[in-house]
Amino acid sequence: MAFDKQITIPEGYTFRPLEKTDYHNNYLDVLRVLTEVGEISESKFNELFDYWKSLSDIFHPHVITNKSGKIVAVGMVLFERKMIHECSIYAHIEDIAVAESEQGNKLGYSMIVGLTNVAKEGGCYKIILDCDPKNIGFYEKCGYTNGGNEMFLKFNA
Amino acid sequence: MAFDKQITIPEGYTFRPLEKTDYHNNYLDVLRVLTEVGEISESKFNELFDYWKSLSDIFHPHVITNKSGKIVAVGMVLFERKMIHECSIYAHIEDIAVAESEQGNKLGYSMIVGLTNVAKEGGCYKIILDCDPKNIGFYEKCGYTNGGNEMFLKFNA
Repeated sequence: MAFDKQITIPEGYTFRPLEKTDYHNNYLDVLRVLTEVGEISESKFNELFDYWKSLSDIFHPHVITNKSGKIVAVGMVLFERKMIHECSIYAHIEDIAVAESEQGNKLGYSMIVGLTNVAKEGGCYKIILDCDPKNIGFYEKCGYTNGGNEMFLKFNA
Repeated sequence: MAFDKQITIPEGYTFRPLEKTDYHNNYLDVLRVLTEVGEISESKFNELFDYWKSLSDIFHPHVITNKSGKIVAVGMVLFERKMIHECSIYAHIEDIAVAESEQGNKLGYSMIVGLTNVAKEGGCYKIILDCDPKNIGFYEKCGYTNGGNEMFLKFNA
């Protein structure tokens, strides 16, 4: 079945790639809804932004902005060129976060649908992400299927 | 807790990075134990190998060879530079396979431990992988913790 879902964000909201000026536009604060970010200087942000930009066939960071142009949701999709399936590309969704003030606007859904369409248009074979078991139903509504378990190990934790 | 496991492969076996000449050394056949690979020409293999090599801070494909130097296990670890946790690096283990003739030699364990040490030495904050629920116990023996669920979507499937 082809993926045919579309973003349904409120009028005046925009789904777009991350821009360098977004350091001053709430990007890190929205990311802090997800997990610890720490203090990141503008030069450190710019260095990582430039790294992602220089590898724009791999890293596709995106945001959703509200009517004022302020970032209210963030997300990344990463393209991985593999050997399997005749050298296919796999996409990985990473680090989704939505501003707490925007609950009820379905921005999480729109971010997942937006990133999934980035992967589809990029010719990816498959897209995967890891989630908390309580969010399985949400991702099923986005068109995803439960494929297994995520295992992790933190170094020096 | 620091990760301190070591590879314990049979004498004469070697854990090492993938080399370009491995096209002729069983690499694709071992990968076929995992999933469909398809027909990959030497020039297609070389093109992807060169791509991975040109991005050697990201892609770390590895193999285990037996006493004859023949590949008997394969695995990839991918480094992802993130913004979270003060611009930390996350490692992703992908596409592990062991030749069916090598069952009982704990090469799966050694591949995971080897790739985990590549991530540790690379300064990664965390390493993650997706697995079938039946393999959770195996990854726990490797030092991993169950962190959630994998969701996927195949395009045009």
